[in-house]
Amino acid sequence: MIEKKILLADCPDDKGLISKITNICYKHQLNILHNNEFVDFETKHFFMRTELEGIFNETTLLEDLRLALPEGANLRLLGQEKKRIVILVTKEAHCLGDILMKNYYGALDVEIAAVIGNHDTLRSLVEKFDIPFFCISHQNLTRVEHDKLLADKIDEFSPDYIVLAKYMRVLNPEFVERYPNRVINIHHSFLPAFIGAKPYQQAYERGVKIIGATAHFINNELDQGPIIMQNVINVDHTFTAEAMMKAGRDVEKTVLSRALDLALHDRIFVFQNKTIIL
Amino acid sequence: MIEKKILLADCPDDKGLISKITNICYKHQLNILHNNEFVDFETKHFFMRTELEGIFNETTLLEDLRLALPEGANLRLLGQEKKRIVILVTKEAHCLGDILMKNYYGALDVEIAAVIGNHDTLRSLVEKFDIPFFCISHQNLTRVEHDKLLADKIDEFSPDYIVLAKYMRVLNPEFVERYPNRVINIHHSFLPAFIGAKPYQQAYERGVKIIGATAHFINNELDQGPIIMQNVINVDHTFTAEAMMKAGRDVEKTVLSRALDLALHDRIFVFQNKTIIL
Amino acid sequence: MIEKKILLADCPDDKGLISKITNICYKHQLNILHNNEFVDFETKHFFMRTELEGIFNETTLLEDLRLALPEGANLRLLGQEKKRIVILVTKEAHCLGDILMKNYYGALDVEIAAVIGNHDTLRSLVEKFDIPFFCISHQNLTRVEHDKLLADKIDEFSPDYIVLAKYMRVLNPEFVERYPNRVINIHHSFLPAFIGAKPYQQAYERGVKIIGATAHFINNELDQGPIIMQNVINVDHTFTAEAMMKAGRDVEKTVLSRALDLALHDRIFVFQNKTIIL
Amino acid sequence: MIEKKILLADCPDDKGLISKITNICYKHQLNILHNNEFVDFETKHFFMRTELEGIFNETTLLEDLRLALPEGANLRLLGQEKKRIVILVTKEAHCLGDILMKNYYGALDVEIAAVIGNHDTLRSLVEKFDIPFFCISHQNLTRVEHDKLLADKIDEFSPDYIVLAKYMRVLNPEFVERYPNRVINIHHSFLPAFIGAKPYQQAYERGVKIIGATAHFINNELDQGPIIMQNVINVDHTFTAEAMMKAGRDVEKTVLSRALDLALHDRIFVFQNKTIIL
Repeated sequence: MIEKKILLADCPDDKGLISKITNICYKHQLNILHNNEFVDFETKHFFMRTELEGIFNETTLLEDLRLALPEGANLRLLGQEKKRIVILVTKEAHCLGDILMKNYYGALDVEIAAVIGNHDTLRSLVEKFDIPFFCISHQNLTRVEHDKLLADKIDEFSPDYIVLAKYMRVLNPEFVERYPNRVINIHHSFLPAFIGAKPYQQAYERGVKIIGATAHFINNELDQGPIIMQNVINVDHTFTAEAMMKAGRDVEKTVLSRALDLALHDRIFVFQNKTIIL
Repeated sequence: MIEKKILLADCPDDKGLISKITNICYKHQLNILHNNEFVDFETKHFFMRTELEGIFNETTLLEDLRLALPEGANLRLLGQEKKRIVILVTKEAHCLGDILMKNYYGALDVEIAAVIGNHDTLRSLVEKFDIPFFCISHQNLTRVEHDKLLADKIDEFSPDYIVLAKYMRVLNPEFVERYPNRVINIHHSFLPAFIGAKPYQQAYERGVKIIGATAHFINNELDQGPIIMQNVINVDHTFTAEAMMKAGRDVEKTVLSRALDLALHDRIFVFQNKTIIL
Repeated sequence: MIEKKILLADCPDDKGLISKITNICYKHQLNILHNNEFVDFETKHFFMRTELEGIFNETTLLEDLRLALPEGANLRLLGQEKKRIVILVTKEAHCLGDILMKNYYGALDVEIAAVIGNHDTLRSLVEKFDIPFFCISHQNLTRVEHDKLLADKIDEFSPDYIVLAKYMRVLNPEFVERYPNRVINIHHSFLPAFIGAKPYQQAYERGVKIIGATAHFINNELDQGPIIMQNVINVDHTFTAEAMMKAGRDVEKTVLSRALDLALHDRIFVFQNKTIIL
Repeated sequence: MIEKKILLADCPDDKGLISKITNICYKHQLNILHNNEFVDFETKHFFMRTELEGIFNETTLLEDLRLALPEGANLRLLGQEKKRIVILVTKEAHCLGDILMKNYYGALDVEIAAVIGNHDTLRSLVEKFDIPFFCISHQNLTRVEHDKLLADKIDEFSPDYIVLAKYMRVLNPEFVERYPNRVINIHHSFLPAFIGAKPYQQAYERGVKIIGATAHFINNELDQGPIIMQNVINVDHTFTAEAMMKAGRDVEKTVLSRALDLALHDRIFVFQNKTIIL
């Protein structure tokens, strides 16, 4: 059966890597639809993303590739199955709403398995779209306890990615390590400016002329994870902190849903706290 | 004689300020060509910039206005005389070059009185445009001594503004206080991200997807002065720190010359470490 | 009772207009919160938008203003009542969805009285938000007949504005004239490039590197009405016409909802087929 | 001797092309520094740009490639020699000035062999940079005669590219055909909007909210050649046609010099009146 799959390969750089990989694909009679490579000359690391079409003998293909590539190569062959996400929210609707709406009209090719809020505020919005909503309040719980409840609920759905759509709590290290490079957050500033709480208030006080938003994978340092996408809008002296916050919503939601789209299409490599997007 | 002048007024906010000011202008038979006001409701301060045309009795006009406005009002009436700048540089040509070139073809309405470098590198570029260049080396001098030499040379030309066109040294507090809100700097990052040295290297290491430049007045905290203008460009994983630096040149030079243009047209108010641009 | 109202005034330019208007407001003990004026020196026409706070004697205020201003002045005093819109759609959900969602979370201060589709496709989306949906099919009807049915349904709701959220039919002149400067359309190109049908196909064939969207009031020439807002995104050779169409959705929806927001805040003057936005 | 060269290949698409090309490079012991490919699925055409490092046996390499690739393949192997341009101008300095200045400080890796003006206006600017300037007036000449004089002068310098830096005359078909895909023009609008003369006046009259500039190769239809790069800036109702023209200068000059930079780095394929930029 003719299928499409995406091959993701990264390894220490070496001569002839593209030749070796494309040769093997050719011998397997796989047609290359799209191909992108990148060599980071500083870290001497090679990245390649190839969209293939043909009849796949997955085991031999991966074996052939592994033999051809240097020690330590990472290889993934990804099918076209729809990916699954769980979304975490607090009270703000704009990022969640954009994902729900885009998914509704087919612009995000994803299965939203569940939405979990630490408040119940967004239940009715989620339920409009016939998606299960779970409220797991953090009240009277330690952070570790609360995050454990979240993780247990998340794991029921085995999501590919967890999306923090304005989830306004810091997640503990254990949670973060449980889902490496699988938790996508939207930060409402142009990182690394205005790390932490109330970035619009910080931006207002500093008198900046541009504000932004940053989608990134979370790691164990606050707002320090690998950046996937950023975007900005112009502001001026007429913007109060609140006006910035309102104006920032459109850029936040767009940045988050585009970053998610990149993840869903297997276009992101994470390497040494940076993203390579092919 | 019919002239055009710009009236800049700012004072604590009060009822009827626009009415009072425009009334006085009307009684003086001055025509309002453009008018912009702004009230900062947080600080309760009022700002107004009015382009006037007519026959000016400057003393009575300012007296009438001062009587009508609240205590503590700042009033300036600025003529159409060409403003004068002194430019400070080190070795990089792109910001200086853009100002020289724009001035050459009439896009910046300014008299470049002199360019001063702490290196001699840019002499031949400056002299192409028949503008005096002075090399004042910092070698074997304390910062205070060097800045004193700079200030002495600058003061020979009585400039309206001093432009730091990639002048790569920090200026001491005494120098800064000598020219309040008159020294315009270009910082090669999107402030407040990447304060201090080597912002492109910092941006590269952080893996940002957007880089920028910030024009600001200098004050006594490094890269903390009032921001006049910012702009950004997109980058990605293929950009080394050096590639970012190269790509950043166009945005740096454009931001600096636009900020200068705002200053030359008397469009900037500075208030509590922010700019109001009318 | 202390209220806020917006005064919109435009008239042939004359000396002292700002003074006269602000004086009258001052005498009425109305406080000016925001004020913007513009003089178009080509047409010699004056525009002013003033946000006022105080106790309004609306009749005398407008009378006083009318006496003070030149013949032919247009004066409107608008309260803070929520505006009402009717949305026309065909089958595409993204623009409609953005307005529904923004209205849901309070980012668009509007009452969506009804959505009318010439297809039934979007009924279930609209009904999720408890807004009435009417399908008025154009089948077996002339354009004039169909537009008459639309107008009859629209008029049941007395909307302030009619929003064409990807309504894919041309409206006949009679319809257009019934709602002057009240019908806002989104055109999926950067007008005046690619007027008419299939702009993304046209853009693809021309090989442009930027695509855009334009929100405008409709008039009786196709895609020639006064432009309210435009925005663009970068594309490259990898974009098929379909990829452009998908990428364009985010810019279309954002441009339309921002243009609508300007209309809802009474910030748009239309004059000689252009908009002045204060 | 170890050298760097750029291989440009394009041909009808086929299976295994990347594999074949990279294999041959590998067998020639050439290291791939950067590699980009693109398949246009509509025209079924394959494009590849490869930066190679090693010891080149140019004849055998090209022979091997030609044997491996389908009939009709275009192959070019380009060395690192500095490219040569001739610039055509009329009276406006901003695009010329930017190229001169960038070349001066090393941001454009190019030899400017000569500047030719149909007016003498820009002579002194060009001569500041020790570049020969030739005035070839069009007065009393037919277009064909004038273009012939231009071509004769251009051909003295055997340039790789001819840059129209605000050259305000249409060139005749014979001239255009003499330099296929080698004449880069800057058009001061966001093409295909506002083709022809006075685009800023057209933009002003239409009341657009964004203006732009387009760099393109010229062909024999006015402003219809393959687009290389476009960029835009926001404008509003306060912009007269003249203000748009002034504001547009920065975007024009930046777009032209970036497009030129792409050409100088052999990054542009032209195919069926579009550009593929790898």
